[in-house]
This record gives sequence, structure tokens and C-alpha cells, in this order.
Amino acid sequence: MTTQISELPFNVLADELERVRANTPLVHVLTNEVVQCFTANTLLAMGASPAMVVAKEEVADFAAIADALLINVGTVYAERLEAMNLAIAAANAAGTPWVLDPVAVGVLPYRTAAAKAMLTQQPAAIRGNGSEIIALAGGLGGGKGVDSTASSTSALEAAIALAQETGAIVAVTGAIDYITDGEQTWSVELGHPLMTKVVGTGCALSAVVAAFLADAPNRLNAVAAACALMALAGERAVECSDGPGTFVAPFLDALAIIHPAQLRQAAL
Amino acid sequence: MTTQISELPFNVLADELERVRANTPLVHVLTNEVVQCFTANTLLAMGASPAMVVAKEEVADFAAIADALLINVGTVYAERLEAMNLAIAAANAAGTPWVLDPVAVGVLPYRTAAAKAMLTQQPAAIRGNGSEIIALAGGLGGGKGVDSTASSTSALEAAIALAQETGAIVAVTGAIDYITDGEQTWSVELGHPLMTKVVGTGCALSAVVAAFLADAPNRLNAVAAACALMALAGERAVECSDGPGTFVAPFLDALAIIHPAQLRQAAL
Amino acid sequence: MTTQISELPFNVLADELERVRANTPLVHVLTNEVVQCFTANTLLAMGASPAMVVAKEEVADFAAIADALLINVGTVYAERLEAMNLAIAAANAAGTPWVLDPVAVGVLPYRTAAAKAMLTQQPAAIRGNGSEIIALAGGLGGGKGVDSTASSTSALEAAIALAQETGAIVAVTGAIDYITDGEQTWSVELGHPLMTKVVGTGCALSAVVAAFLADAPNRLNAVAAACALMALAGERAVECSDGPGTFVAPFLDALAIIHPAQLRQAAL
Repeated sequence: MTTQISELPFNVLADELERVRANTPLVHVLTNEVVQCFTANTLLAMGASPAMVVAKEEVADFAAIADALLINVGTVYAERLEAMNLAIAAANAAGTPWVLDPVAVGVLPYRTAAAKAMLTQQPAAIRGNGSEIIALAGGLGGGKGVDSTASSTSALEAAIALAQETGAIVAVTGAIDYITDGEQTWSVELGHPLMTKVVGTGCALSAVVAAFLADAPNRLNAVAAACALMALAGERAVECSDGPGTFVAPFLDALAIIHPAQLRQAAL
Repeated sequence: MTTQISELPFNVLADELERVRANTPLVHVLTNEVVQCFTANTLLAMGASPAMVVAKEEVADFAAIADALLINVGTVYAERLEAMNLAIAAANAAGTPWVLDPVAVGVLPYRTAAAKAMLTQQPAAIRGNGSEIIALAGGLGGGKGVDSTASSTSALEAAIALAQETGAIVAVTGAIDYITDGEQTWSVELGHPLMTKVVGTGCALSAVVAAFLADAPNRLNAVAAACALMALAGERAVECSDGPGTFVAPFLDALAIIHPAQLRQAAL
Repeated sequence: MTTQISELPFNVLADELERVRANTPLVHVLTNEVVQCFTANTLLAMGASPAMVVAKEEVADFAAIADALLINVGTVYAERLEAMNLAIAAANAAGTPWVLDPVAVGVLPYRTAAAKAMLTQQPAAIRGNGSEIIALAGGLGGGKGVDSTASSTSALEAAIALAQETGAIVAVTGAIDYITDGEQTWSVELGHPLMTKVVGTGCALSAVVAAFLADAPNRLNAVAAACALMALAGERAVECSDGPGTFVAPFLDALAIIHPAQLRQAAL
């Protein structure tokens, strides 16, 4: 291990959340077919402005005016992949940070090749589970469908290598989340296993990462704060839940309600 | 201002709702990728029968047997646009009323051109936010992504002009909703700001407008009643909500529970 | 009527549910645009692992490693149909059972032809409403959009004929569900009419049918258990619901909470 690991302080989360809420970043979302509504509701609840613009005729125009871009390859097919690559190019030309969510990369060759090609296009951040990060970094990820078979801790070394190779902030999430720039690493030890039984919590997190990256002065802190916010909202929602169905509504409420001042209080 | 504005009486809403519930209109929905499930649940809850038929091989057949058609350009791309135009042509040939929801028109040239071309195809109604209606009417709408930067009141003049130009009922919605045929204008002063933090409330409203337009003897009243029903259900849901997450379930319940007799009582 | 009908015993449901939970089957889902999120949440809640893989470049690879496949033609169009047929071929080559959900077949010629062609590809099971099963079996189904105009009981004869013709287990669902292999027929007299006011309960059931068919020693029991589990969860959710909106969350919770031991207790 070549980096130091520290737990993200609540004060950093508070500062980052205050910054994002003040800016209401416009997030351009190109994600999979399954989670679009949940992702949009997540972004709205936490204080961003989501817009799903998907046509190859429109993505370049929109990526240039958005404050951040999310690319999630969960249900990618040829035409949508073309749109994603156009959006990435336009985002880079405009200096818009973009995030890669490599859903099920390592399981299927088509998307693995697509995601690996995107690695050369300067993503600002990459957010995945253990299997996905290991696969992206060149190892055998070995996921089961969209679920990880590798713990986040077992993927930490791959995450650090991937960050060093690509220049992106890499977040590998799981029981513990690790967020690394290849030198410094934050850990987030929040969240709850019930979140893995609710579709889209990981995908929506990647969108929140994009929101936090908009005009971020410190990208490592921004990505880590996104992970911490989602995990914290998850913990609060579990307190009001009887299972995966009743989790979603209080989770979105928590995202709207969590306030920087509360977090600073909790940090004392 | 060339028209008179009056607040929609609850009795009109009651009569319209009774009519729609008695007919269970079959609504053909061609909408964006984000809100399909919420839109379908909204239509089912309020008493209509939704069907999302999207293939260019099928849309003409279905628009001809449906009672109303919704066209929402939120995530439009070339192939879906071709299907939308086929559906519109078939709807017009069959005398089926169709509704245009011009999501983010004015922000992106591709969809703006597509929506403006549809204006010549005799929409029965157009439902949008202030920025969208201003842009459709030929002004600079200036929305931020899918959100409006113009109030509904500031867009009223554009709405009236658009109604006069197209022959459609135009609903410009926001803090106050205005529904106009270019001569007479209803206002609806219901609803709650929390609804803007829930994805799809506007898109779903446009589908409800389509449901109310099915076999409507008075299209102005029909569109206004749709706006009033959704806003009223929103107010009731807010009473049982702690935030945007807990809003959705009681909102759909309210749509199912609100009864014409209650509305007539409230009108006294 | 050429078959015997018996009500599915709770002990069979308990045994089947125990088997599925122990295996966490990976279910490849190719379904319509409207219900993807609800379907995925349903599978996760009841103990399966869903994956929506839709690209024609990927479906064959994934159908070969999945434990079961669902094909739902609700919003089918040419490219998605091509992917579905590739997935079916790969599933058959790998011995993966696949399920057909013939949404609105009988209403629209394009999908009716597509679904009838699939009947020759050895589906392990077919799950539809009365109108859909009658139409698939060669009669005039006469549905209204995606809703049935024929009761499940009136479609039982068609279901038996379809099972005999195709070799599939056929489930025709409605107020009473009938599950038949053409010789023996289980009935399930559970559920609640409110479920018809919630989008996707039928589509999600078909996905659960696929989950139960994974490595199933007795396919008739597996399909019937899927129907019984969903209907039972629906009954429990109705007890905590005020309408279609508040139904969804406790429904998913019930799917996660219902335990084989409880069912065996209830069977005594």
C-alpha cells in the first residue's frame, strides 16, 4: 500500500455539502435504463438539478452547458455508447468534469472494452464496486452480474493503481468506501447492508459524485463527501425502514434534510 | 393582456373528473425515459388506462385506437422522434386528441426544432413551464436544463399567443397555473413548491391532461381540471410528507381517493 | 376441461421459496421501459439477483451465464426484438430457462407476430393475463391496451392448449391465477384487486417466475410458487396501504420478509 488512509471528517462533508447546495449544479446524466428516475430524484433531493439528455444530436450541446456529466454503462448499446463518447468529448472541451460508473465491467467484454477506452478520456472520477474497479485496473474482477464478488478493501490496491494511471479520483464502494487520488485516501465507514437490496443506490451515488465535482476546488474531498452523504442518508433511512421497499422514501427525505450545520454539530 | 382570467371553480373540476372516471380513457404515452413508471402510475391512480407503445411499427396502430395521445420530448432521439411523428399523424387521422409536452425546449436546438415542427400538427393541448412556453412561442425561454427560469405569470402572454397561433389549449404551469384557449383563461392557484423537487410531476401532469382531453366536450375545462386535480393531490400529499421521498406514495393515493362529491362539497 | 385443478398448497410455496433463496439466481431481464426499476427491486427483495443487459452485443454472452431469462415485449421495437431473439437462442444453447411475458399481444400485430414466433423457441414458461393468453393460443384476446378484457378463468382452456402446444408451463393470472403444464393445473386464489392499479405487478411477476425456474426440479411447482409469493405479498401490503401509492413500499418489504417457516406454519 503506497498511500495513507484516513476517515473522512464530518467537517469536510459539511463544507462540501454547503458548497454544492449553494450552486445547484446542473448534472448531465447518461445512465442506464433501470435507474433514471431514482437517480434524478436523488439529485433533486440533495440539491442538484438533473437532466437526462441522451440523443447524439443533443449530448455535445448539453455537456458543454452542464456543470458535470455522469456516464454509466449499465445498459449501454451501440447508439447510446456513441452518444456517451460525444458527451465526454464535449465535456472535456468545455472543462466540464465527468464521472465514469463502470457497471458490470469485467463481466461482459463489450462494455469492458467501452469503459477501458473511456479511461483515456480523462475522467474526473470513477466510482465502482470492488469487482468493477479490479476489472478496470486490469485484473479479473469476477462480479456476479451487477453485484460485486470482491470486497472494497480487497480492491483498494487496484483503486490506487487506477487513480495513478488515469489521474481520476477513484471511489471503490462497499462495506467501507475508499476514495483515493493515488496518493491520499479517504475512507467512509458509514452506510448499511440494506442499501445493497435497493436498486440504484450505487448508480445514484455516481450521479451525486458528479454533482459534488462541479466547480470543486478539491476533487478528492468532493468525491469522498458524495460517498459520505449517501451513506449517511442510508443510515438515517434504515432507522425508518422495515425493508428495502420502505427504505427509498426516507432515504430521499434524508438527502433533502441533512444540513451542514447538523454535520458540524455531529463532528464536535 | 387580451383575455380574462378567472380561477377554475371546483365544480368544473368535479364535473370533469366524474366524466373521466366514467370513461377510463386509454392513453397512449410516448414520453421520456425518466418518468415512464411514475407517469403510468399517475394515470392508473387517477382512473385512466396508460399504455406505453413506442415502436414505429406499432405507434400508428395504437394511436388510432387510443382515446388520447401524449408526446413528451424529454429524452427524444431520432428513432423515437420518428415514432412520435407517426403517432401524431395517426392520431390526427383518427380524431384522437394529442398533447405536447415540450420538455427543455429552448435549451437545445434539436428538440426545439422538433417541437416547433409538431406545432403545425394541431395539438389539442400544450403543457409546459414558463421557459418552455416562451421558447415555443418564439421568445428566448432561457431554462436551466429541464427547470424553468421564467415564472408562469411572466409566460402568460406567450401562452395566449401560442394558443391563438396553434389552436391548442395552452397550459403554462408553475406557482400559479394558467390554462388558456387564447380568449378565455383559467387560473389554478393550488399545489406546493415541494412538487418541483419530485421528478416527473410536470411530465405526469401532461399525461393527465391527455386523459382529460379524451372525448372532452370542453377542452379548456378539461385541461384546467387536469392541472387542478394534480395540484390538489399535491397539496394533500404534502400534508403527509416529510420531504420529496415521502411525497410520492400519498400523492398517488390522493389521485385515487379524490372524489367528485368531495370537490362539490368543498366548492360550497 | 382436460385437466385437474387443485389449489397450490403453502408447503409447496415454502419449499420453492427456500430453494430460490438458497441459490440467489442471476436473472437476465429484457423487459419493457416502464417497469425496469420496479422489476429489479422486486427481484432483489425476494432474493434473486437481477441484471438488465440489453445490447445485442452483450445479450448472448449474458444469457449464457445467467440462471434464467425474462423476455417481456411491452415496449418492443426492432433493435430490442433482435436482442431478445439473440438472448433466447443463447439461453436455449446453454440450457437456461426463459420466460415469455406477452404484454398486449392480441392488441397490436407487430408484437403479436414477434411473440408467436418466440413460441417455437421452447419457452420454459409463459405468464400473461386472460386476453394475452387467449390471443397467444390463437383466439381473439381483445385486450384494452395492456389490460385484460377476459378473466383468467375464461382463458383457462386457452392456457391448457397453449401449454400442450408449446411444452411451456403457462400461467394465466387475474382474480384467480391458473398455472398449468397442460395436464395438471394449480390455482392460486390470493392477491387483491388493488394490485391491478399499480404499474408493473404483472411484469414483475414474470421476472419472479424466471427466478423460480432457475435450476427448478419441478417447473410447474416453481411457476405456481412465484404466482403465490407475489399474490401473498400483495395481500400483506394491502393491509398497510391506503391506495396504489402506499402499496409499493410494503409490497417490496413483504417480498423480503415472507419466510418459508411462516408459510409452513400457515399451512398447518
